[in-house]
This record gives sequence, C-alpha cells and structure tokens, in this order.
Amino acid sequence: MTPPSALPSFLIHYQALVEDALDRLVPPEDQPPEHVHRAMRYTLLAPSKRVRAALALLGADVCGREPRAMGVALAAEFVHASSLILDDLPCMDDAQMRRGQPASHVVFGEATSLLASFALLDLAYRTLTRHYEDHLAARLVTLFSETVGTDGLVGGQADDLLAANREITFERLERIHRLKTGMLFSAAATGGALAAGGLPAQVSALAAYAKNLGLAFQVVDDLLDVEGAESETGKSLRRDEKKTTFVSFSGPLGARELAGELCATATAALAPFGSRADRLRELADFVARRTR
Amino acid sequence: MTPPSALPSFLIHYQALVEDALDRLVPPEDQPPEHVHRAMRYTLLAPSKRVRAALALLGADVCGREPRAMGVALAAEFVHASSLILDDLPCMDDAQMRRGQPASHVVFGEATSLLASFALLDLAYRTLTRHYEDHLAARLVTLFSETVGTDGLVGGQADDLLAANREITFERLERIHRLKTGMLFSAAATGGALAAGGLPAQVSALAAYAKNLGLAFQVVDDLLDVEGAESETGKSLRRDEKKTTFVSFSGPLGARELAGELCATATAALAPFGSRADRLRELADFVARRTR
Repeated sequence: MTPPSALPSFLIHYQALVEDALDRLVPPEDQPPEHVHRAMRYTLLAPSKRVRAALALLGADVCGREPRAMGVALAAEFVHASSLILDDLPCMDDAQMRRGQPASHVVFGEATSLLASFALLDLAYRTLTRHYEDHLAARLVTLFSETVGTDGLVGGQADDLLAANREITFERLERIHRLKTGMLFSAAATGGALAAGGLPAQVSALAAYAKNLGLAFQVVDDLLDVEGAESETGKSLRRDEKKTTFVSFSGPLGARELAGELCATATAALAPFGSRADRLRELADFVARRTR
Repeated sequence: MTPPSALPSFLIHYQALVEDALDRLVPPEDQPPEHVHRAMRYTLLAPSKRVRAALALLGADVCGREPRAMGVALAAEFVHASSLILDDLPCMDDAQMRRGQPASHVVFGEATSLLASFALLDLAYRTLTRHYEDHLAARLVTLFSETVGTDGLVGGQADDLLAANREITFERLERIHRLKTGMLFSAAATGGALAAGGLPAQVSALAAYAKNLGLAFQVVDDLLDVEGAESETGKSLRRDEKKTTFVSFSGPLGARELAGELCATATAALAPFGSRADRLRELADFVARRTR
C-alpha cells in the first residue's frame, strides 16, 4: 500500500519542471537589489508540493494541451509565495516557520520580506502577459486579479484576522477558506483550462473540482496543525489554538469525514472528463490520504 | 503673478475627473471586508495633486486623444497609493503623516494597511484589462509590472532603505529616485500615449520629459522637507535628516538650480509636439515654481 504521505509520481515530475521555470524567471541573487531577490527566491523555491501549479497543468491536460498551462502554473506559484510571506508577518499570523525553514521575516526582516512579497505578486502579472497571446493574457490577468483582491485572497486574510479570538459560524469559516485557498486553486485549474482552449463546461467542471479540493486541503491543514509533526508540515504548528478551525468545529473525526466528503464531491465533478482526469482523481485521493 | 503653490487650472479639472472615477472603482466602505475597503479609500481618495494621472491624460492629449488615457491614469494612482501605504509602514520609513492626515497604519493598523496596499496594486492591473482592448491591455500590464518590480518601485524603495544612515554617491541617489518616482511618472505619460495610439517618437519624447520631471519633483520634495511647512506638503517633514538627499548634496541653492535645470530638460523634450504640449510645459513650470 502507498504510504499516506507519498506524493503521486506526476506531482514529483511537475515539481521539477515548475521549479526549474520559476528559478529562471526570478532575477539571480547577485543582481541588485540582491537582498530582495534573495528573499523572493528563498520562499518561492523552498520545498513545496506545488499543488497550485499541478492544478494548472492538470486543468490543461484534461483539455488536451498540458504544456500550454505553464504560464498559469508559474503565476499561481508566484501569487501563493507572495501571500505566504505576507501572511507570516508579525502583524498578521506572526508565524516563525514556513516550508521547512524559518519564515521570510525571521531571516530577511520585515521590510525586505514585504518588498519581496510585492515583487512576487507583480511578477505573476508579467508572467501572464509574457506567456500568452494578448487575448488570453488579458483574460488571465483579470481572473488572477479577482482571485487576489478583496473578494479573494486579501478578503480571506482580512476575515481570518478578524476571526481570531472570537466565535465564528461554520459558514464564515468556510467562506474564509474558500477565499484564502479555494479561489487560487480554482484560478489555477480554470486558468490552465482556458490556456488550453477548454470549453466552458470543462472550465466549470474544473472550478467545481478545485473549489472542493481547496476546502478539503484546508480541513487537512487544520487536522495536521493539531495532529501533525512540524517536520512533516514544514510550518509552525499549534498556531490555531486561538482560532476557530474545522477541527474545533467538528472534532478530528468529523473533520476527517468532512475532508473525505469534499474530496469525493471534487472527484464527482470530474465525470465529464472520463479517464483523462485520472491524475486529478489521484490528487484528490492524495489530499484525502494525508488525513489518515 | 501666479502664487507659487497655485495649481494649474487643468490640474484642478483633472483632479475632479480622476477622483470621481477612482471613487467608483473601489468597493464602498460598507461592503466586506469593510475595514480594508475603508483603508483603501482613505489613502487613495485623500487630497493629492494627482500628478501621475495628469501625466497620463496629458500624454494622451498631445497625441490627440486625451479621453483614452483614463484607465492608465487610474492605474497609476492605484499603484502610487499602494506604494505610499507600504513606504510609510513602521518597518519602512515609519512616517506618521501622509496627504494631510495620519498615515494609514496609524489609523487602521499595519495588517489592514498592508492588505489595502496589496489590494490597490491588484486593482491597478484589473483596471488596465477592463479599460482597454486586449492588445493594449497586455502591453500596459507589462509596462506597469516592470515599473513596480525590482527594476522599479520595489527596487527603488529597497535601495532607499539601504541608503539610510550611510554615505551614498550622487549617482546612487539619482538612481533611487529614478526608480521610486521617475519610472511611474514615465509609465503614466507613455502609457497615456500608447492608449492614444501615439507614435514611437512621441512615446520616447514623453518618456524623456517624464523622467526628468520625476527627478525634479523629487529634488523639490527634498527642498520642501527642509524648508516647507507640514500644512503645505501634507506629510511628515524633517524625516530626511538621516538620509542623503539632493539638498544634503548640493545645498538648498544647488538643489533649486538642479530642479530648474531638470524642468528645462523636461520641457526641451517636448519640442516635437509644438503648442499641443503647452499644458505639459505648464506642469513643468509648476514643479519648478514650487521651489521658490
């Protein structure tokens, strides 16, 4: 039997492709401003499953043109790294560890980390305009901008901060994670499909898949925060004690069940793709497996 | 004679147009996340000369199609407001006053200010894709992204922070302000020209004008920091004492002369436009006049 934490082989293949391309897009560490470039590379290139990039590539793959999605995959990774640096800052979540190493602000200080975070967000947009013909680039810039703004990542983080130290409803908790995780998952998968010329029905199916997978991913994160080892998750744990989480709502057992249900709902959305979507199913299984 | 601080009448006209459009693009204060929208509007809509927006509109005007530039004008104001919030943070310049009111972090705290700053940068890109046909939008997104990144605003702010409390060369000081001010001035003016279908020679002439005007603008800022009243500049003064500035290099008299020369060089670049560029000349005169 596959061990719970083993990455699917396609994910390992994608990691290498994506990290190589990311490495080439960020200026080298000896180019001024050296400390900002060093901070950008530090968080961006640190060990990561690259789930968002994989969603973009798989979203294009099920539409028959996987290589077209690389620009979307990279943009999603830039946005994600930018948001990790921002969210870990002392004035936000004040996290000390990220991706198996001290968080950016611990190593580079707040000012440099902030500038790196800004520059990474900025690079996402440039990557889209450089990778795609104008019509597609404009559509993807709009998609990513809506994913980042106050109806997306920024809104989710704002709500998450407000929710600390107070009781919130399950609906509110779900909304926070839909904005913080689900929207970028969805932008990656649907952006990949758009880059591959996917049909509207294919794009919608991928949106439904990614939205549910994103929520499942967050439920698992909450479980690992309670039950996991820092060596396994690569970030500061037990930081959620003052927060309402899916575990504090439903208990570990209920949360585990919820994650399984969400993965099943995600997988159900893939029916129209038939066996072409086997890797997306494998990805959902991988997420569900991490909770066991 | 015109009093030194009187705004040219076209600038007053543009302010009203631009502020009305900005107001309509940012979600209202009662829409969640309310505190982030409030912080976005607080700095964005506070009193400002709107020089960057004016440069976009005038850049299009000299190419014969002023109304086409509104999207560029708004994007430039979004980027500028975003960078003001960021630069004022305690870990950056730690400024208390901005645009005649307490700085964003003083009122809303660091976390909300940071999220507002991110969301404003993000809105700049969405504004470009929503205002323009795809070909132009893609070109403008690339232009703005290069203006913001580590070869632009981010790089300038990084260098500026490194330069505090140490001796730097005149070349380095000039470079900092070219990145921090000149590049966004230039992106606004040339972006406006591109939106108006300007010819390459017109775009280059505007780039030369805006680059020199941007530097003159910064020299005047340094002079006002030493000689001005807070009620006039709307921001914290005497903050430059630990910094190398154009005034610490050349003295007030030398700095005044330098600003005049830069404005003259800016104006000289406008020759190909003839009398069409009279407002751009008036803007340069206005900048030079503020030093007297």
